[in-house]
Amino acid sequence: MIRIVYLLVKPMFRQECLRHYQMSEGIPGLFKYEVRLVAENPADTHVPYLDVGPVHAIGECWFQSPEDYQRYIESAVRKAWFEHGKTFIGQLKPFVTETLV
Amino acid sequence: MIRIVYLLVKPMFRQECLRHYQMSEGIPGLFKYEVRLVAENPADTHVPYLDVGPVHAIGECWFQSPEDYQRYIESAVRKAWFEHGKTFIGQLKPFVTETLV
Repeated sequence: MIRIVYLLVKPMFRQECLRHYQMSEGIPGLFKYEVRLVAENPADTHVPYLDVGPVHAIGECWFQSPEDYQRYIESAVRKAWFEHGKTFIGQLKPFVTETLV
Repeated sequence: MIRIVYLLVKPMFRQECLRHYQMSEGIPGLFKYEVRLVAENPADTHVPYLDVGPVHAIGECWFQSPEDYQRYIESAVRKAWFEHGKTFIGQLKPFVTETLV
């Protein structure tokens, strides 16, 4: 499973995030998409605090295989989805993650 | 459901992350804990790139209710877990998230 976590800055409208979520339905190769708004930024951590500046939402994409990911990349539906993202996402930080267990 | 995403800096040993995961079993109030290592940091994003500096792992905690979260906070097992975290996590950035759909 390929899982990519995204930090999103300035998803200007909750409504646009919701629309982006709805558009993710049926994108070839995309197993699952999730987006959540950042509600609180607690800074009273038990280890030194890391300040990364304002982040407004966190998204995640799941792909079941490298072949699915390739299908997703090549898909016209995915390209249209990215175009929609450009209309409301100010900045984006992706992390490709690796399962530990 | 309360879900908190954590960016972790310098989890110095994969083995320590794994141990931390194992220690999370049975912590009162904690519904689920997940930790993944950051494998890649693609910067070729379709919207402007957000640079947040080096992040080495991403964790997440799930709590089924505010009461469970309170139980977790007050638990001696949770306190011991945080003490273990201090031994190998350099910096931490938590995001309390809000489900959109």
